Amino acid sequence: MTAAANPTACLLVIGNEVLSGRTKDANINFLANRLGEIGIPLREVRIIPDVRATIIATVNEVRQKFDHVFTTGGIGPTHDDITSECVAGAFGVPWEPHPEAWARMERHYKPGEFNAARQRMATMPRGATLIDNAISIAPGFTMGNVHVMAGVPRIMQAMFESLAPTLAGGPPIASRAVHADGVMEGRIAEGLAAIQARWPDLDIGSYPYYRMGGGGVALVAKGNDPDAVEEAARAITVLLRAMGSHPVQGEPPA
Amino acid sequence: MTAAANPTACLLVIGNEVLSGRTKDANINFLANRLGEIGIPLREVRIIPDVRATIIATVNEVRQKFDHVFTTGGIGPTHDDITSECVAGAFGVPWEPHPEAWARMERHYKPGEFNAARQRMATMPRGATLIDNAISIAPGFTMGNVHVMAGVPRIMQAMFESLAPTLAGGPPIASRAVHADGVMEGRIAEGLAAIQARWPDLDIGSYPYYRMGGGGVALVAKGNDPDAVEEAARAITVLLRAMGSHPVQGEPPA
Repeated sequence: MTAAANPTACLLVIGNEVLSGRTKDANINFLANRLGEIGIPLREVRIIPDVRATIIATVNEVRQKFDHVFTTGGIGPTHDDITSECVAGAFGVPWEPHPEAWARMERHYKPGEFNAARQRMATMPRGATLIDNAISIAPGFTMGNVHVMAGVPRIMQAMFESLAPTLAGGPPIASRAVHADGVMEGRIAEGLAAIQARWPDLDIGSYPYYRMGGGGVALVAKGNDPDAVEEAARAITVLLRAMGSHPVQGEPPA
Repeated sequence: MTAAANPTACLLVIGNEVLSGRTKDANINFLANRLGEIGIPLREVRIIPDVRATIIATVNEVRQKFDHVFTTGGIGPTHDDITSECVAGAFGVPWEPHPEAWARMERHYKPGEFNAARQRMATMPRGATLIDNAISIAPGFTMGNVHVMAGVPRIMQAMFESLAPTLAGGPPIASRAVHADGVMEGRIAEGLAAIQARWPDLDIGSYPYYRMGGGGVALVAKGNDPDAVEEAARAITVLLRAMGSHPVQGEPPA
């Protein structure tokens, strides 16, 4: 595994709508890529419902196990938005108006429109620091190692980009892909296992792809040591050529 | 919550490629919808890496907490496909050739092509029952309440459809959606909380949507009692009209 030198991340996707199938999550893949880029690889994702006891127990479990926890969803103004008060519950601190969040939102709304429901969005665990929201004002927040963000992808992405520069990442993870049409996993498995054994610190992954008229396999080497990643990619290329195929650098075209 | 009368499901998505961002999961939304349809609502999803200790600990945790556990990924022929042997480890049983799986695969491959790597796909926890694979032969399996399926969406879906008729679902979950352009969540939150309080056995969800030139909010009522769902949907419609909007039945167009 390559993660030893890197801080780790866990993502909690909070919302009944993803579990019921109403909504397709659009945040996992974005965060998986961006967290990899800043050297804080995503090690686990959990999608959990808007249930108080579940949110509190899950936050408390994963904030012990991972260096960073990111949450998406459940910080809007309606009754089913309970992430913020649950994070207060998980940390055992009061859930109270955050002066700076309150001031930003009061400035944003017309007189009389900063109502009780919207005031909930300015109510946070005591000790939270704000995550800016350039799209719709109402901020996210960081509490300890837990980063609480919106579920709407555009807003979540803006929040993440304002947060990312404040996070200390580990060394970047180097990655090389090679693919070859017409190769079946079952024929290269033995040779590939030997390559994995030769570079035990790398992650060597094998991913079949399917398309009209054929398909093949994409092989990916990842790790902190870019030279080892290059060498493993060369060994993979040799293996694929020995199968009579024509390996190509990079991922297969989408 | 509506799930009291229904068996519950947890999905484990097993694979480094989803956590690294290489691959966008395409199975969660399919299973969320199909499990809802057969009355076994999905209550949690975990995406975990191809790490033996993590897979074993997670399988053992969630098979106690949920009525059904579904896994996707990690049952191919390569060295990073370790789901099957980890499920054997979780149940504390030998991982050994499954006679029927072995026979099916031996028939499928040409002489000499049913090699050691492919034989791994016919190796299963002792006591497993097969899940048919109409696409590419190599079966999935059920062990206790854990249903082990492929990660490739087309194969997973074929496996699920062969498995689904054997699962005893609970009562279907009724659902009604109403949406209205131009309505902001912050203005209806109070009225919506009152509707949730009036029908505490229903799940009332509020989901803003965004599009060129505007947006609005979709409100969804779900539960086992179809009459209560209808009544709550009517109350939501009245609430939206009182805001001066023009509510429309159903989800907003995509």
